[in-house]
Amino acid sequence: MKAISMKQVHMHDEFWSKRQQLVRDVVIPYQWEVLNDRMPGAAPSHAMENFRIAAGEAEGEYAGAVFQDTDFSKWLETVGFALSLQRDEALERIADEAIDLVGRAQQPDGYLNTYFTVKKPDGKWTNLRDDHELYTAGHFIEAAVAYYRATGKRKVLDIACSLADCIAAEFGAGATQRHGYDGHPEIELALVKLYQSTGNRTYLELSKFFVDERGRQPHFFDGEQQARTESRFGQRGYDYFQSHLPVREQTTAEGHAVRAVYLYSGMADLAAEYDDRSLLDALKELWRNTTRKRMYITGGIGSSAYEERFTVDYDLPNERAYTESCAAIGLVFWANRMLQLEADGEYADVMERALYNGLLSGISLDGTKYFYVNPLEVWPSTCEHRNDMNKVKGTRQPWFACACCPPNIARLLLSLGQYMYGVNDREVYVHLYASNTFRHKIAGAELELVQQTAYPWRDKVLFSVSPDRPAEFTLALRLPAWCKNPGITVNGEPVDPASCAERGYAKITRTWQPGDKVELTLPMPVEIVRSHPALRANAGAIAVQRGPVVYCLEEADNGANLRDVTLSRNAAFSSDYDPSLLDGVVTLKTTGWRSEMPADDELYTTDVFGRRQVDLTAIPYYAWANREAGEMLVWIREQ
Amino acid sequence: MKAISMKQVHMHDEFWSKRQQLVRDVVIPYQWEVLNDRMPGAAPSHAMENFRIAAGEAEGEYAGAVFQDTDFSKWLETVGFALSLQRDEALERIADEAIDLVGRAQQPDGYLNTYFTVKKPDGKWTNLRDDHELYTAGHFIEAAVAYYRATGKRKVLDIACSLADCIAAEFGAGATQRHGYDGHPEIELALVKLYQSTGNRTYLELSKFFVDERGRQPHFFDGEQQARTESRFGQRGYDYFQSHLPVREQTTAEGHAVRAVYLYSGMADLAAEYDDRSLLDALKELWRNTTRKRMYITGGIGSSAYEERFTVDYDLPNERAYTESCAAIGLVFWANRMLQLEADGEYADVMERALYNGLLSGISLDGTKYFYVNPLEVWPSTCEHRNDMNKVKGTRQPWFACACCPPNIARLLLSLGQYMYGVNDREVYVHLYASNTFRHKIAGAELELVQQTAYPWRDKVLFSVSPDRPAEFTLALRLPAWCKNPGITVNGEPVDPASCAERGYAKITRTWQPGDKVELTLPMPVEIVRSHPALRANAGAIAVQRGPVVYCLEEADNGANLRDVTLSRNAAFSSDYDPSLLDGVVTLKTTGWRSEMPADDELYTTDVFGRRQVDLTAIPYYAWANREAGEMLVWIREQ
Repeated sequence: MKAISMKQVHMHDEFWSKRQQLVRDVVIPYQWEVLNDRMPGAAPSHAMENFRIAAGEAEGEYAGAVFQDTDFSKWLETVGFALSLQRDEALERIADEAIDLVGRAQQPDGYLNTYFTVKKPDGKWTNLRDDHELYTAGHFIEAAVAYYRATGKRKVLDIACSLADCIAAEFGAGATQRHGYDGHPEIELALVKLYQSTGNRTYLELSKFFVDERGRQPHFFDGEQQARTESRFGQRGYDYFQSHLPVREQTTAEGHAVRAVYLYSGMADLAAEYDDRSLLDALKELWRNTTRKRMYITGGIGSSAYEERFTVDYDLPNERAYTESCAAIGLVFWANRMLQLEADGEYADVMERALYNGLLSGISLDGTKYFYVNPLEVWPSTCEHRNDMNKVKGTRQPWFACACCPPNIARLLLSLGQYMYGVNDREVYVHLYASNTFRHKIAGAELELVQQTAYPWRDKVLFSVSPDRPAEFTLALRLPAWCKNPGITVNGEPVDPASCAERGYAKITRTWQPGDKVELTLPMPVEIVRSHPALRANAGAIAVQRGPVVYCLEEADNGANLRDVTLSRNAAFSSDYDPSLLDGVVTLKTTGWRSEMPADDELYTTDVFGRRQVDLTAIPYYAWANREAGEMLVWIREQ
Repeated sequence: MKAISMKQVHMHDEFWSKRQQLVRDVVIPYQWEVLNDRMPGAAPSHAMENFRIAAGEAEGEYAGAVFQDTDFSKWLETVGFALSLQRDEALERIADEAIDLVGRAQQPDGYLNTYFTVKKPDGKWTNLRDDHELYTAGHFIEAAVAYYRATGKRKVLDIACSLADCIAAEFGAGATQRHGYDGHPEIELALVKLYQSTGNRTYLELSKFFVDERGRQPHFFDGEQQARTESRFGQRGYDYFQSHLPVREQTTAEGHAVRAVYLYSGMADLAAEYDDRSLLDALKELWRNTTRKRMYITGGIGSSAYEERFTVDYDLPNERAYTESCAAIGLVFWANRMLQLEADGEYADVMERALYNGLLSGISLDGTKYFYVNPLEVWPSTCEHRNDMNKVKGTRQPWFACACCPPNIARLLLSLGQYMYGVNDREVYVHLYASNTFRHKIAGAELELVQQTAYPWRDKVLFSVSPDRPAEFTLALRLPAWCKNPGITVNGEPVDPASCAERGYAKITRTWQPGDKVELTLPMPVEIVRSHPALRANAGAIAVQRGPVVYCLEEADNGANLRDVTLSRNAAFSSDYDPSLLDGVVTLKTTGWRSEMPADDELYTTDVFGRRQVDLTAIPYYAWANREAGEMLVWIREQ
């Protein structure tokens, strides 16, 4: 299956389009001001000033993180995605000028990294493990590809190619070349995109080189550390960098979660490009470990704040979940690529899980505040008073406090269209449900496929299938694993999904006529979900899910001390769409139980506390922390 | 009520005497070798070498912590307690020589602290907040008092008095004196002991001065910080040091738990000596907060590894409990002093709770391995792989790895006798039950009171009350809060405990004849205990207790994944004493339930897992981690 271009999809969705609009109208202009140190109240980014200094057009010292350039790159990539959806002359003028500046900051040999150019010219390529040098290059390349694809303007692509050529000269199997790779994967998937946009196989081969070298002995990081005097993070295990083993020998998701899923995404690209079975086998093993042993119900991954990392199987504590927004985004990247390798709905299920839950929770409804960390349970007192919870915040933080997750969420939201569909010569796969219009050439016809739905709140998805002439192909509709009784009609005639189901998709093959109507019904009763019994943190607890949306209890609706609440597995729920609440959500109402508070304050007693019935209201997990601060809980004790 | 001297009590108890013997035979000789850097495999302590350098009898640099002298002091105090129980010429010779050395290391003005004498002679009294200078003095004074009381040898007491005089010259209300106090309380209670042994009220008044000054504005620590250039721990809040408010205004237990209970113990001493109602009121408030909101069922306190501190009410996570052994010991110190202020069984209940559970868990059955941290739930994988659990160990550590809790446990075990009884003119209070012989002069008679019991395993405690002549006084037997149906007979005649119960004690007043027999029966069925509903970590969970002993499930008996286990509130237990297990314990056997493991490895599912009955064996919490490493759990999910 192939990916589609986001230009093929025009979103007109109640749920997603307003979020995309927010990114265009609020986030992009805001971030540009921050990048230029013009946002009152925001810490100066210095990112654009670094480029001016590197270009010799300003005096001063470099400032910011070693990967400060990526703040600009992520902005530019987001701009590219925005322009793919809708051109905007004023915005392009700003971006073009910035690209010109970047071009002037680039060195004659193609090298582009203001940190090293300005601050450490002799230190280039000496500490790949820690200095994010290829990671920074990778983000610029991704941005260049996005901007080029949106505008057709080659200049930024030329800069990127020149940078990639510089890297290709430095790294490779040659005797005088460095046999290394970056501590933070990213360049791998970026080079594949550059190859796909330019056709230059050098980039693809360089990506493969990086992936093949990773974790080999003698270890590249050992060698470069010996060549240096200092070692900043020398105590980290190589599993942190996913370089503890050659990638094809890795079977468990280890180390820094964002790095892991960026690496796996690059590996998946290469598995597809090279039809590399050994890579695919490794990826399937890693996927299974990640999604069956190390993923929260929200699609969050990385359960340890320390090193933002994976830990061990089934270690998924709710109140100390790290589950960085960027890691959930990376999981979407990876899932989408796995789906292209194997048309299996399981990948799309995980993609959807992350999208509607652990990823979307990272941004406030008004788009101005963010979570790095997305816990599944919050008791604000302990966030404030326990040092072992100091990464968990009970309230979202303003954009400028963090430079990593917010732009990542922004670029994901704007590029959402490309995740909706997958295609091959005779098939159109619908992975996600949202109102949009998809245009694609298939079986000799120009297809216009229109989805209309109020997903994720309502169970109907209507498709208007309009090839410009009759055409035989397969429409493959994903049957989400959460849905037990999907229904399909084609032009009003029922089609039994079971009769045409294949690995999570209902495959409807026919000669489609302009104006054909398909109606997909995905009944979404409230479901009670349990964890595998080995997931200790959730023992005895149940979660509430409706459709793809995981719910939570929030103090604003239910009072404090949510751990005291119990819920019956047979609880009856009413579910109602409330347009005025939290930008419009379906809330779930039911009854549960709480303890009668004892008359005295004995801490330990043989008394049995009475339990009383209470009304409970659950809201979508992603929408929590948009009202007053308070407790939140996903896994509710079962009565 | 007054404290008794430990010399009045001769222990001959199945449960405790072997532990005391272990300290005398194993721990004291071992630690002496460590203090002299002669223990192979142990990191050199350098403590005695520091004294030799300070005395001008050796060359070299100071080594060790700023409070390294206290390692010797705690050893010497333990030796004092050992000699109180039984004189030992060889041991005294070693101790006397060491005391001579300390005397030579003391400065002409009485100052005694090898760190400052050797390493920082100009830095004396410049950083009370961080440098433990008075804390170190306090431990020496406590040791001196113990050794003097045991042996009657004045030399060590003279050294201590000279040191205390030096401190009294430096600190006080005078215009040229320092109006300060130590960051780590300890000197306060030590000075009261010195006063009690010498009759010199200067020491008592100095103790009161330190307590009264604490937390006053302008803040002493601010002043001394301004006078210095460096500030090592300048970012700590003053609550860490219990100096955020004047002590009489403090209402919640805050900061470093050991410091807190050492301070409260000193305050209690002063409340008694000065009959200071305002101090007593503050202490009662602090006691209530500590024991009703911030104490584990094991008597452990201090729920945060960071700063080893109290956090907020009801924040008592089981797997991240810090509950330092020393803090439980300090709680015993404090409880014992509160009991002297108010003859209320509640204090003794807490003392007993800490003693049989969170304190005793700190030492292995063979006396050679220790826990600093006493969690109530352990999953070894997360201890190893989660940085936020890096203080929690799944196995006890050898003595030499830590210098704080092991000697503290040793001195507590040897001095246990003094906690057994309290007296006043007409009353003998029995606080704790264990086989021992207590000698005391009361109502004109020489009383020999013999306890015979197999406590905590059996419910009978037999007293032989033998005044050397008939004497009228009250025998007050503690009625533990955990016991619902105590029974008493006097010379075979039943006495209704309810008829003579007063604040947790059955008070039997009569003219006692030599040979009178009292039989106390404390039925100890297995009890199911619950936490206050606001204690979130224990929601839906029950603990198993028998008598004063809290039980746990260990992987060695019950397999792994203990969170999956459930237990009915109506579970029937068999309880049997097994002399061959864990040095002899009563084990509890019952049945509970576990999940059927699903056939697939789905992490989240709407399936309901079957539950099957399983045999469960619970062992005393204090005895866990004496077999192979594995999971442990106190709070079991209720079926």
